[in-house]
Amino acid sequence: MSRLIRALLAFALVFSSSSHAAGTDPLPSWRDGNLKKSIIEFVSEVTMKAGSRFVPPEDRIATFDNDGTLWSEVPTIEVEFTKNRLQEALKKNPNLKNQEPYLSLLKGTPVTQLTQKQILEIVALTHTGMSEEEFSSEVREFFKTALHPKLQVPYTQAVYQPMLELLAYLRANDFTLFISSGGEISFMREVATTIYGVPSQNIIGSYFVDKLEEKNGRLVAVRTSALGLINDKENKPIGILRHIGKRPIFSVGNERSGGDIAHLRFSRESALPNFQIMINHDDEVREAAYSEKDNASLAAAKKFGFKVLSIKNDWKQVFPSQKSIAKDF
Amino acid sequence: MSRLIRALLAFALVFSSSSHAAGTDPLPSWRDGNLKKSIIEFVSEVTMKAGSRFVPPEDRIATFDNDGTLWSEVPTIEVEFTKNRLQEALKKNPNLKNQEPYLSLLKGTPVTQLTQKQILEIVALTHTGMSEEEFSSEVREFFKTALHPKLQVPYTQAVYQPMLELLAYLRANDFTLFISSGGEISFMREVATTIYGVPSQNIIGSYFVDKLEEKNGRLVAVRTSALGLINDKENKPIGILRHIGKRPIFSVGNERSGGDIAHLRFSRESALPNFQIMINHDDEVREAAYSEKDNASLAAAKKFGFKVLSIKNDWKQVFPSQKSIAKDF
Repeated sequence: MSRLIRALLAFALVFSSSSHAAGTDPLPSWRDGNLKKSIIEFVSEVTMKAGSRFVPPEDRIATFDNDGTLWSEVPTIEVEFTKNRLQEALKKNPNLKNQEPYLSLLKGTPVTQLTQKQILEIVALTHTGMSEEEFSSEVREFFKTALHPKLQVPYTQAVYQPMLELLAYLRANDFTLFISSGGEISFMREVATTIYGVPSQNIIGSYFVDKLEEKNGRLVAVRTSALGLINDKENKPIGILRHIGKRPIFSVGNERSGGDIAHLRFSRESALPNFQIMINHDDEVREAAYSEKDNASLAAAKKFGFKVLSIKNDWKQVFPSQKSIAKDF
Repeated sequence: MSRLIRALLAFALVFSSSSHAAGTDPLPSWRDGNLKKSIIEFVSEVTMKAGSRFVPPEDRIATFDNDGTLWSEVPTIEVEFTKNRLQEALKKNPNLKNQEPYLSLLKGTPVTQLTQKQILEIVALTHTGMSEEEFSSEVREFFKTALHPKLQVPYTQAVYQPMLELLAYLRANDFTLFISSGGEISFMREVATTIYGVPSQNIIGSYFVDKLEEKNGRLVAVRTSALGLINDKENKPIGILRHIGKRPIFSVGNERSGGDIAHLRFSRESALPNFQIMINHDDEVREAAYSEKDNASLAAAKKFGFKVLSIKNDWKQVFPSQKSIAKDF
C-alpha cells in the first residue's frame, strides 16, 4: 500500500465514520442509475453502526476478479506477456517453433481454442524454471515497454476508471480489498499495488509450486512446473477461503468463460449482508462486446441475485483517459 | 482487525511518524538488555524516513511462528485439541482405539515419537471430512472449555505477554504482521484475531485441500484429507512467499525442532534491513526448558546472525498474569 493510500485510509478512519464527504460523488464515472444507487445504499447500510445490516470492519471483505473486471481482457494482458516470453524462449531454442503447442499459438490460434493441457504447457515454459525474483524482473521489464495494441498506452492504463473509484470508495469505508483471479499470482503482484493500491499479500491467483533452493549461499524460491492451483471457476472460492479465511461480502466478476459464477455465489451465500456484480461486456464502441455461448454467467446472475453491470449503460467513462482513447475503438 | 486496533493504527499514522510516545517503554515486560535495545534500535532505524536504513511501510513485513513463539507449546495446544477430537471420534467408532496410530497416541506416546505418516493420519481423522464452517465451530467449542494443564487457564491465556507487546509495538510502527506456523491454518484462525489482533487473512499455516460442494443448495468448502502444505522447515519460506509475495524483514521463531531455521534465514537474506529472533526455551521455573538434540536452531542463529532470546534472561514476565501463574511451575 502506498503511503498516500495509507494516509487517506487513516484520514478516513479518523474523520469519518462512513462513506464519502457529504455532497461529493464517490463514483463520478458511474452513470446515475439503479446499480450505482444500490452500491451506495449497500455500503451505507453495512457501515451504519446502529443499523440492522451493520457489518464490522474485519468482515468487510471485498474480492475482485482482475481480467475483464479491473482491467480490459481484450487482449488478455498475461497472454500478451506469455507470447512475449515465448519469443524470448525461441531465441534460445529455435526448434520450439515447430513443436506443439507453441506452433499453434505462434500461428495465431486464440488461447480459448487451445486445450487446458496445451495452455499449461505454454505457461510452464514461459513462467517457470527461474527464481521468483528473476520472474518478477521479467514481468517488470514487459510492463515497461509493452503497449496495448488498440489503446496504444501501457497495459497498466488499460484499467477501468470506474473500478478504481469503486476500490477507493470501498477502501474509504474500511473494506479490505483482495484480487482473486485466474491470472498467475506473481505476474499480478508486480503491478497490482501500483495500479490498484492492493498490496501483494492481498492478491490471490493461480500458481505453480515453488521449491526452496540455495543459490550462491542464499535461499531462493524457484518456480517449478508443478501446478499448485488454477484459481478459476469452482477453485476460486477455495483459493479465496484458503487465503482470507472468510467469505467475501462484496464480490465483482465478469462474464466471458463462467470463471466468476462460483466466486460470486460463494459471496452471495454468506450469512452476512452481501453484494455481487457480474460485468456484461456490451460496449463495442468504448471497450469490447463479447458474451458466452451458453450465457451461463448472466443466467447465474439472474438465478442467484447478482447485479449485472452494463459497461455501455452504467459507465460514463471506461478508461482513465477516455477522450483520447475512445476514438481508437 | 478489531476497531480498537484500527483506531490505534490510524492514530499512530496520523500523529506520529515512528515508534512510541516519548518516555514510555514500548516493551515493559522485556528486561533492559542488548536484545530489547537492538529491537528498538532496528524499529527506529527502519521507520526514520531520512535515514539510510529506512524501509517503506509496504515492505515492513513481520512474520511470527506460533507454537513456542507467541504461545506456549508445552503442551502443544493443537495436539491437545487433536486428542480431544480423537475422543469424540472414538465415541462414534470405538474400534479405532485398538488401531494404530491412534492406540499409540492414546497410550501416551509423545507426538515427537510418532512418524510423520502417523501424525498425518491422526490429524486427517480429527481435522477433515467436515465443512470449514463445522470445523471452525468445533475449534471454538474446544477453546471455550479446555484448560491449560499446568497454568489452569484457558489456552488463549497461554500467550507470552512480551510477544503481545512486541506485536503492538511493530503494529504501531506500521509493520504488517503475519503468523506463519506449522499449525493448521483454520485452527489458528479461530483464535488468532482475538488473542493477537492478527486478522484471519494474515495467518499462514499447514492445510488440507478444500473441495467445493453444494449442500442444501449452498456452496460450502469441505475439508478433504489431501494434504496441501506442511508449513514448516523448508516449506515455511514457500508458504510465506505464496501468501505475502515478499520476504519478511522481521521474523521470530523458536528452537525445538529446527522448524524456523529456513524461516529466519529467508528473512535474514532479504535485500532490505532485517531482524530475526530465535527463542531459546530455557526457563524451567516460569515456562519450560527444552532443547534440540542437535542444537540446530541455536547453531543456525550463530551462523546466520539471528538474535537469540533467552526467556529466562530477556523477559521480566512470561504470561499475562505472571504472579498467579509462576507458582504452578
